[in-house]
Amino acid sequence: MSNEKKIPYKIYLEENEMPKQWYNVRADMKKKPAPLLNPATGKPCTAEELSHVFCDELVAQELNETDAYIDIPQEIQDFYKMFRPSPLVRAYCLEEKLRTPAKIYYKFEGNNTSGSHKLNSAIAQAYYAKKQGLKGVTTETGAGQWGTALSMACSYFDLDCHVYMVKCSYEQKPFRREVIRTYGANITPSPSDTTEVGRKILAEFPNSNGSLGCAISEAVEAASSKEGYRYVLGSVLSQVLLHQTVIGLETKTALDKYGIKPDIIIGCAGGGSNLGGLISPFMGEKLRGEADYRFIAVEPASCPSLTRGVYAYDYCDTGKVCPLQKMYTLGSGFMPSANHAGGLRYHGMSSILSELYDQGLMEARSVEQTAVFEAAEIFARIEGILPAPESSHAIRAAIDEALKCKETGEEKTIVFGLTGTGYFDMYAYAAYNDGKMQDYIPTDEELQKSIAKLPKID
Amino acid sequence: MSNEKKIPYKIYLEENEMPKQWYNVRADMKKKPAPLLNPATGKPCTAEELSHVFCDELVAQELNETDAYIDIPQEIQDFYKMFRPSPLVRAYCLEEKLRTPAKIYYKFEGNNTSGSHKLNSAIAQAYYAKKQGLKGVTTETGAGQWGTALSMACSYFDLDCHVYMVKCSYEQKPFRREVIRTYGANITPSPSDTTEVGRKILAEFPNSNGSLGCAISEAVEAASSKEGYRYVLGSVLSQVLLHQTVIGLETKTALDKYGIKPDIIIGCAGGGSNLGGLISPFMGEKLRGEADYRFIAVEPASCPSLTRGVYAYDYCDTGKVCPLQKMYTLGSGFMPSANHAGGLRYHGMSSILSELYDQGLMEARSVEQTAVFEAAEIFARIEGILPAPESSHAIRAAIDEALKCKETGEEKTIVFGLTGTGYFDMYAYAAYNDGKMQDYIPTDEELQKSIAKLPKID
Repeated sequence: MSNEKKIPYKIYLEENEMPKQWYNVRADMKKKPAPLLNPATGKPCTAEELSHVFCDELVAQELNETDAYIDIPQEIQDFYKMFRPSPLVRAYCLEEKLRTPAKIYYKFEGNNTSGSHKLNSAIAQAYYAKKQGLKGVTTETGAGQWGTALSMACSYFDLDCHVYMVKCSYEQKPFRREVIRTYGANITPSPSDTTEVGRKILAEFPNSNGSLGCAISEAVEAASSKEGYRYVLGSVLSQVLLHQTVIGLETKTALDKYGIKPDIIIGCAGGGSNLGGLISPFMGEKLRGEADYRFIAVEPASCPSLTRGVYAYDYCDTGKVCPLQKMYTLGSGFMPSANHAGGLRYHGMSSILSELYDQGLMEARSVEQTAVFEAAEIFARIEGILPAPESSHAIRAAIDEALKCKETGEEKTIVFGLTGTGYFDMYAYAAYNDGKMQDYIPTDEELQKSIAKLPKID
Repeated sequence: MSNEKKIPYKIYLEENEMPKQWYNVRADMKKKPAPLLNPATGKPCTAEELSHVFCDELVAQELNETDAYIDIPQEIQDFYKMFRPSPLVRAYCLEEKLRTPAKIYYKFEGNNTSGSHKLNSAIAQAYYAKKQGLKGVTTETGAGQWGTALSMACSYFDLDCHVYMVKCSYEQKPFRREVIRTYGANITPSPSDTTEVGRKILAEFPNSNGSLGCAISEAVEAASSKEGYRYVLGSVLSQVLLHQTVIGLETKTALDKYGIKPDIIIGCAGGGSNLGGLISPFMGEKLRGEADYRFIAVEPASCPSLTRGVYAYDYCDTGKVCPLQKMYTLGSGFMPSANHAGGLRYHGMSSILSELYDQGLMEARSVEQTAVFEAAEIFARIEGILPAPESSHAIRAAIDEALKCKETGEEKTIVFGLTGTGYFDMYAYAAYNDGKMQDYIPTDEELQKSIAKLPKID
């Protein structure tokens, strides 16, 4: 490789260049996302209603569609300094391996013990809970990144933390569980007999492996049944996307420093928090007519909410206790096949991203998991980072776009979000290494069946 | 915390500030480490003899006692840029938690997939093997960090890699094994029936859990029985300490930028590569009379080579096929108790560090593992990084020194090496979380027994 590169392998911002405000993309959207609805009344949720479930300040953020910038409290900025800024990496080695004229960058969020971007929102949510004088918070976790992040954040602010972990993950990922315990959190496999909704599910399906939707219902019930507790969530909600804009804001500052203008910005999408956080500042420019970019959401073919779902109001959880949200959804009863590895298994999508996608401002594609792990292995070997299965969806799409550039000779600049590391996903890598990994694409009939159970909302 | 800190939480060097040469501390030592001896002849090993086991360029580095600086080849510098510079972190949160006037810094080497500093030397050794036109390399790994690092380095240079992994680790750390496989290396639990020495050990001890010394013997035999292969080692040797000086050189540059002069530099010590790499540039100043520092080597009480061993020639491996080295040693037959977690389980110590310690230029202390995990948990919760058990030995000593400063009111500056992360050590954390971790200190009789078997060398 040449020694005359003007752009370093890794661009790190200085501490004083880190964002002091989050960016709220809704302020620049002419047509806003549809409001959350109260499942009991069918009417938009009021702040008062939401405050029974969520912390007050987070409710305010959830409902705020007008302020483009929201100050990041100093305590959160200080915590961010422990693990941020995250590097924006020029993937010189990957470019060389692919022999592509494309220029590839990735924003790497995995350099912290939660192993992902989830800590960006966890610390904000824990901070507001502490500030409100709460005793603790409850949450669910699927693959475990969010549970780890929240346990770290709560430990820092000395808050009680109770995590409901999807049972199959709890059993398959004993090390994730142990990290969460090391941070002092309580952890319960879901469904459990500690909640009414859990007992109900267990009565009907005694061998249930659990699901994200079910764990959410348990965590919400646990929060509302204890004095001084609230429920917090790691993705999907607009408040979470807001906190995650530190990813996009840092990325934009780093690119601007070197005069780089991306053509394509790519992120994996489950509930949408990482993708939303990464693209928001760039989307803002697009919405204001200041610049144009292609945005690509990459989702698993086994859980294709954007590419094969419908845009409609749906339940956010199995127990139907959460507000209804208008989103691209596969139906709250949808569960990806058991052979689906890693996260990105939520049946719906952030309402902000759903609306942007519906307006044609963002593209979406789905990829199959063997192709994803093939990309993961190439990336691990050549860039030296073993990626999370979730993040590898973005890698797959970035490689595919770079290979298109190779065909056309275009020198496009591609930026993708590398949300985390795969150190706790080695069962999935083992399946891939052993040639035992399978793809799974739900049939139209399956999807129609779960979509048919959407609530009827005018 | 105040917002007026002049020193950032994390000091990152610019790419152009990264070291272009390694520092060879032997050049500044008046009394050099004793030479390696050929076990057959009892005479100093020649370059020709060593070249049957090691790559030529690495042999030259092993024997080089005169050049203070050795150029880092451009290809290695390029690879370093993928995961280095590593941050020098000001432990503001830990200082606050301890309420100490001490200023604590740590150099964090865990932000790469090998999870430790081991990659610094792995990439150098793989590079020289490739440059020599070899087909592949063999090695042993205990806790698994070195095996992971070498598999990453070999994958990058498209070299075959065969790792003998101590059997108990192979079984207890399936995820480490899977990472190594993902990087395309072959991995064999040791003792195995693939080598003569392995078969001999299995015949005598059919249920052997393996040891580092035994895995070394197998890897050396495997290398010498295959055309185009050499053996590489992740610690102990002077060449490895040389490569690891990137840690100390970066640390010194970062400190110098902010005008910080450390009082105490602390590192964990197993074979000595991390500690040697961290302290070398500072030790050079001390040897040249330019500055003074306290250096503290921290080792496990269950494997106390510096604090309870003898300074003598000893075998480096169980099979007695490697050169003899003069070092602080517990005898090559010594094995730490099975309840010892993580690495730092080698019976001897780097010859450079042994000589420096013998000259009184460095201190050593041993710590028990429950105290180590207590420090690890404090650190994880307050600094947000879940440390490796090995690294946590240094954390323990740093906390103890900071608490002494609290008593005396001294504002000492403490720098320690945080060699890696504990993501693959969660069994050990689980034992600690469950209150099942035990301490183990070998008795004098045990040590005398293994030390009595040292070879007789004039």
